[in-house]
Amino acid sequence: MTPTDDELLDLAERVGAACRTLGLTLATAESCTGGLVAHLVTEVPGSSDYFRGALVTYADDVKADLAGVPSSVLAAHGAVSAQTARAMALGARAAIGVDVAVAITGIAGPGGGTDEKPVGLTYLAVADAEGDDVQRHVWTLDRSGNKRASAAAALALVLDRLTARGA
Amino acid sequence: MTPTDDELLDLAERVGAACRTLGLTLATAESCTGGLVAHLVTEVPGSSDYFRGALVTYADDVKADLAGVPSSVLAAHGAVSAQTARAMALGARAAIGVDVAVAITGIAGPGGGTDEKPVGLTYLAVADAEGDDVQRHVWTLDRSGNKRASAAAALALVLDRLTARGA
Repeated sequence: MTPTDDELLDLAERVGAACRTLGLTLATAESCTGGLVAHLVTEVPGSSDYFRGALVTYADDVKADLAGVPSSVLAAHGAVSAQTARAMALGARAAIGVDVAVAITGIAGPGGGTDEKPVGLTYLAVADAEGDDVQRHVWTLDRSGNKRASAAAALALVLDRLTARGA
Repeated sequence: MTPTDDELLDLAERVGAACRTLGLTLATAESCTGGLVAHLVTEVPGSSDYFRGALVTYADDVKADLAGVPSSVLAAHGAVSAQTARAMALGARAAIGVDVAVAITGIAGPGGGTDEKPVGLTYLAVADAEGDDVQRHVWTLDRSGNKRASAAAALALVLDRLTARGA
């Protein structure tokens, strides 16, 4: 099911409250979601207190140049991979100078899918000072729905990580 | 009036069609819109053909570090100014390596306004190889509405510039 506007905003509000509780700053690095996660985070009034910015790295060379994804990682594993998601999160965390960064890379569709990497395949990664987590999903919605499902999962992943740290 | 989802998506589709007609690539540099413009552009299937990425520069030092806005411009004119909007567009155009970049900086509210710079004050800039245009608006909607009004105006500004070039 495609997450509703209310569900997405609720997640963004809970992520914001957790950042405030822990005194942590946040950034995003987005490919398939195209800035949707940053948009949701900044729907919350006062989000400038913890949200510092985002990199939307749609083209592969932008993933390398701005988020610092090694070209060797892109060549070996592709833009839609656990390795690229992790590198995007680590790179955005450093480039934007935040405590926590979440990255999303996937195939929103309707084009771009292959047998090995179907439309809907999405990798998420969250990175903080203590390490990182990576998740794999395969959504079966339309382009807009896949973006929204990825955004909801990315916000939930951040929330899980912050909750584990005591938020 | 707050632009509807359909109105925003229609603008994003028209911008995409104009980029295709002229064979130009696009990027955004966003402060108050928080990634909404990039999200809208990437709702359009196939937008990866012309959209390369975005910088969401929410914090002032991120505007300087990622979008290359000179600290002297931020100090002299503030983050919400014609000069900063123009510098964000020029900086994103160079950093992301595109033909056309559009920048948005404003005060979405409800906090952050002053007598001199009220909530809703927003500057837009579009830059391409031939020069740049800057616009000033003062929206009177709520936070989410101000973001949407800014996004619609930014897409319309790009469309005007591309239309003037023959799209």
